[in-house]
Amino acid sequence: MAAAQEYTVRKLEAGDFDKGFLQVLGHLTTVGDVSREVFEEQMRRRDASGAYHTVVIEDQGRVVATASMVVELKFIHGCSKVGHIEDVVVHPGMRGKRLGLMLVEALIEAARADGCYKVILDCAESNQAFYEKAGLQRKEVQMVRYLDR
Amino acid sequence: MAAAQEYTVRKLEAGDFDKGFLQVLGHLTTVGDVSREVFEEQMRRRDASGAYHTVVIEDQGRVVATASMVVELKFIHGCSKVGHIEDVVVHPGMRGKRLGLMLVEALIEAARADGCYKVILDCAESNQAFYEKAGLQRKEVQMVRYLDR
Ligand SMILES: CC(C)(COP(=O)(O)OP(=O)(O)OC[C@H]1O[C@@H](n2cnc3c(N)ncnc32)[C@H](O)[C@@H]1OP(=O)(O)O)[C@@H](O)C(=O)NCCC(=O)NCCS
Ligand SMILES: CC(C)(COP(=O)(O)OP(=O)(O)OC[C@H]1O[C@@H](n2cnc3c(N)ncnc32)[C@H](O)[C@@H]1OP(=O)(O)O)[C@@H](O)C(=O)NCCC(=O)NCCS
Repeated sequence: MAAAQEYTVRKLEAGDFDKGFLQVLGHLTTVGDVSREVFEEQMRRRDASGAYHTVVIEDQGRVVATASMVVELKFIHGCSKVGHIEDVVVHPGMRGKRLGLMLVEALIEAARADGCYKVILDCAESNQAFYEKAGLQRKEVQMVRYLDR
Repeated sequence: MAAAQEYTVRKLEAGDFDKGFLQVLGHLTTVGDVSREVFEEQMRRRDASGAYHTVVIEDQGRVVATASMVVELKFIHGCSKVGHIEDVVVHPGMRGKRLGLMLVEALIEAARADGCYKVILDCAESNQAFYEKAGLQRKEVQMVRYLDR
């Protein structure tokens, strides 16, 4: 097993379909039966918009952690930008090695480079302490409505 | 003054720059000195991405209410979508006439039409009851980090 400093954060690549990218997301929530074609089409759409950052950490040829960010273009604050961090997950066998923190810090740097004035995310109260380690603070409440399609 | 049923929700147009669109947003937070050129460029970028819905309500030639939504493309849940509702504001003189509710309901319909499996937003605890009237429920906590640029 690699020492902590040997892990590197890199961008998601199409080849990560074969390295367990979707399986890692499956430790966050339901992913369902996503074919290679559907995955590649979604990656293409996200890349084309220029609004997404998806980062991964690999260990022994497998994706073991991932996180995403969508950059929103605002009218407020002088037409500024906000980074929305989404879908942060570390493989259960790889937790507690600072991989989660590395991902969130990489996205914060990407947000800064893109000119975002803030990054935000929604999480369970049980993960608040984790995000505080990455310099985030609790602020508002999240509201949700599920839609029948 | 128009009766409630006379108000209609429509999409943001470039001409809303001259109808007080940014001034209404100024009742939500700081907008700053946004020129017509910067506004139009931001509108163009948002339109080009296909990911934004911005709705307004007009009264007597002035924009009196607005709300936005960004549609995020996910890998989870079978590469589904989530609508992020943002920047909901009604002119102080026009509150309490159900205009806020009309905007949020229009965005929820747009999210449904786009195939989103849920809509989410972050708000102050003092606005929770308003969003509950639009069928949203409180779920997670919002975390934020402001970035020095
Ligand atoms: C939350 C999660 C991403 C954290 O990843 P991780 O790699 O295990 O976390 P790290 O090792 O980077 O943790 C960094 C620090 O936060 C702490 N921490 C991590 N999770 C924590 C938690 N839930 N509560 C309190 N502290 C936590 C760690 O102890 C560590 O502290 P230290 O710097 O003092 O050593 C991971 O547990 C996970 O994938 N959980 C399931 C999916 C999930 O809930 N994702 C978040 C969705 S919003
Ligand atoms: C929050 C806001 C958008 C509501 O707009 P509005 O047009 O005044 O609200 P509506 O008239 O559509 O209200 C619909 C219902 O919610 C209720 N409601 C509105 N705001 C409420 C609040 N803060 N607390 C409790 N109930 C509220 C209304 O009384 C009404 O109830 P009813 O259906 O029983 O009559 C408006 O007050 C506003 O612009 N506030 C400042 C900006 C802001 O905070 N925006 C939200 C950012 S997350």
